[in-house]
Amino acid sequence: MKRAMYFLDQKDMPTHWYNIQADLPEPLPPPLHPGTKKPLTPDDLTPLFPMELIMQEVSTERWIEIPEEVQDVYRTWRPTVLHRAYRLEKALDTPAKIFYKYEGTSQAGSHKPNTAVAQAYYNKQEGIKRMTTETGAGQWGSALAMGCAFFGLELKVYMVRISYDQKPYRRILMETWGASCVPSPSPDTKAGRDMLEKWPDCPGSLGLAISEAVEDAVTRDDTHYSLGSVLNHVLLHQTIVGEETRKQMEMADAYPDIIVGCIGGGSNFAGQFLPWIRDKISGEKPDLRIICVEPESCPSVTRGIYAYDFGDSAATAPIVKMYTLGHGFIPPPIHAGGLRYHGMAPIICHLHRLGLVEAVAVHQTAVFEAGVKFARTEGIITGPEPCHDLKVTIDEALKCKESGEAKTILIAHSGHGHFDLAAYDRYLSGQLEDYAYPEDEVKKAQAELPEV
Amino acid sequence: MKRAMYFLDQKDMPTHWYNIQADLPEPLPPPLHPGTKKPLTPDDLTPLFPMELIMQEVSTERWIEIPEEVQDVYRTWRPTVLHRAYRLEKALDTPAKIFYKYEGTSQAGSHKPNTAVAQAYYNKQEGIKRMTTETGAGQWGSALAMGCAFFGLELKVYMVRISYDQKPYRRILMETWGASCVPSPSPDTKAGRDMLEKWPDCPGSLGLAISEAVEDAVTRDDTHYSLGSVLNHVLLHQTIVGEETRKQMEMADAYPDIIVGCIGGGSNFAGQFLPWIRDKISGEKPDLRIICVEPESCPSVTRGIYAYDFGDSAATAPIVKMYTLGHGFIPPPIHAGGLRYHGMAPIICHLHRLGLVEAVAVHQTAVFEAGVKFARTEGIITGPEPCHDLKVTIDEALKCKESGEAKTILIAHSGHGHFDLAAYDRYLSGQLEDYAYPEDEVKKAQAELPEV
Repeated sequence: MKRAMYFLDQKDMPTHWYNIQADLPEPLPPPLHPGTKKPLTPDDLTPLFPMELIMQEVSTERWIEIPEEVQDVYRTWRPTVLHRAYRLEKALDTPAKIFYKYEGTSQAGSHKPNTAVAQAYYNKQEGIKRMTTETGAGQWGSALAMGCAFFGLELKVYMVRISYDQKPYRRILMETWGASCVPSPSPDTKAGRDMLEKWPDCPGSLGLAISEAVEDAVTRDDTHYSLGSVLNHVLLHQTIVGEETRKQMEMADAYPDIIVGCIGGGSNFAGQFLPWIRDKISGEKPDLRIICVEPESCPSVTRGIYAYDFGDSAATAPIVKMYTLGHGFIPPPIHAGGLRYHGMAPIICHLHRLGLVEAVAVHQTAVFEAGVKFARTEGIITGPEPCHDLKVTIDEALKCKESGEAKTILIAHSGHGHFDLAAYDRYLSGQLEDYAYPEDEVKKAQAELPEV
Repeated sequence: MKRAMYFLDQKDMPTHWYNIQADLPEPLPPPLHPGTKKPLTPDDLTPLFPMELIMQEVSTERWIEIPEEVQDVYRTWRPTVLHRAYRLEKALDTPAKIFYKYEGTSQAGSHKPNTAVAQAYYNKQEGIKRMTTETGAGQWGSALAMGCAFFGLELKVYMVRISYDQKPYRRILMETWGASCVPSPSPDTKAGRDMLEKWPDCPGSLGLAISEAVEDAVTRDDTHYSLGSVLNHVLLHQTIVGEETRKQMEMADAYPDIIVGCIGGGSNFAGQFLPWIRDKISGEKPDLRIICVEPESCPSVTRGIYAYDFGDSAATAPIVKMYTLGHGFIPPPIHAGGLRYHGMAPIICHLHRLGLVEAVAVHQTAVFEAGVKFARTEGIITGPEPCHDLKVTIDEALKCKESGEAKTILIAHSGHGHFDLAAYDRYLSGQLEDYAYPEDEVKKAQAELPEV
């Protein structure tokens, strides 16, 4: 019998998140205040986040205990399964061994609840009654809606209007979990009203939605704000994924030669690879390759400048040192909405600068070609973001076929594409757009980096 | 630690389907030929089905081995998880222990692939190159598309036109797995062309789609037809679900007092309860309650006549003894499309006649109320069909709260509702229709039963 799924018993579920800041060869450059451009202090952040998360953001403790209440909720869907992709291997006729850790069985369909649940918990602990966040296509908003439902918190999601109108499914998900969701710009905040006065039909943007969610949070004592990627504490919460995978790969008597994952804000892939990279930092596994995959049309790491830039397009969020295409850069409308970000998690950028991870950019049509191949061999309909992983995995597996090497490839598969089928339809009917690297737009945006 | 998920290792996955026909106190009444009204012979069925499935239809062997190739495919998503619904129990403040076996993690999102994969395999073994089937909303068509992709078979799905136009997502699923899908009535068959000539804008019906799929299959030597529920061999393939659950309940040191599941054609729930009912037949567990849940608007078992009737609305399928609302009955357009069937699997009807299972009918609004409660406690967005289970489970759990009994309730949860969110939207916005029992329409349809 060929075991194609590795289950981890709940008694063996990791009880601690792994904090890479304990093992970084050099510390991270500090984030700066968007107004003063001085290093951020915890006090700058208290209107937005609970103190536990602020401390996690800068902690250098190696292991941070997952609160029992959070573990309890994790156990409604975790540990997730590690799969061996025998059928894909066979279709490719490759000696490579392909594994994928699949986060699509969370109730929200992705890795996002790993941090949503933790964030809701810490806010609840601090006496917060209500949270706000922004969402584009709705992946993050729906995950946080579930987290808030589980801890009895109110949630208001500011959803970019064009997505609100065009993609009702994730709005319905949020409402089913009890959140309220309004299109942004909304008349509920000053930022929203100002925009609606100027431009009543404004389709909205993630930058504006952030401004609304932050304004709502800082102007109410009972309310905090939440972010679903990029920040250190978000990546920290995602390490449950990689820690589980380490145990499951051990069950499979395997260790990865290559780990592949897509990066938008970076939290999904970091959640998988951070628990492995410590073996590379320690020198125990010098040859471990960690490949970050980006869209050709929004290649922050492969084409970005390593510089201090605003985390958001509205230039109101903290300034962080990262690879950036410029905070004013608006990526082409690829279907992988979660990868349309001008910057990248500072931790990933830092590790790339240190030569510990590599990055590659791929085209949208090639990405869906890989997604269809995966669907017809393994069955799973993959979200547009992790389809990026599949493209690079197939490329690497075909290199193994040529070289005859039986490498072990591990995919950080972040979730399903059940709400992204329109993109598959366009691919299958030959109508899927492709986008080149928008060099001129990036250059323009990179000319507008803040002076620090 | 409270273990909320029970995983079964793949080495412990059942290797045999359980055939209830070995243990029935009385044999099933034979199905009849729709033309001659004589008992069907295997020869009548060979244009449609491979011989292995025809033999399984009438087999009285207790255990039927799952072919290794089918097990191999099952292992891409099986064994599925048994959950303990601690959070729902707590919200209900009930001493009842609620478990649910969840089939929503199959790649198609339901229990349907359990038989789709097996049927594709047996057809492939018999040298068949191509299959046909009909589908309403697309749940079955998409599962068979996956099964056929895995065994390299072509598939043509005749999809009821109104669903084809209104619900593109499951069509895209089918196409992603490589099937071709046409709206029925189609110009590709005589049945379709005849209808289009009379009524060019005909919205289609399941009965007509069956006629097209059958005509396509019988007029081509390389093609067979496939059905996704009702038949004995379909229920047989679904017993993998209950056999797994038995092992998992043992891991949880529990045995159900009540098993709850919805019935449309009956294959989902039978797949769960048939492996348990043998303990009731043997006298070992005389008090085991098995509750079949139907929609109030289509209550085949609770309000049907036990009689010989056509399996399809077009009156071309075999005549079987079952509870029926009349093959001409057209159920109201409830969102649980999979429960809109005038009849019921003969095995379930027979067991009900023998007093071994009970049935209850519930209203659509109550069903979605239960679905939302489940979403906000357990997280999972449940399909409209298994939301019926949740309604009755909550009722039974609240009875336990009153009586103080800590009963063990097991739910046959057939899958997610990711493609049914519009129904949740209608419920949450107070616009969900409810439907009373359509007594007059049923009486009219029941007056047209065939004379046998």
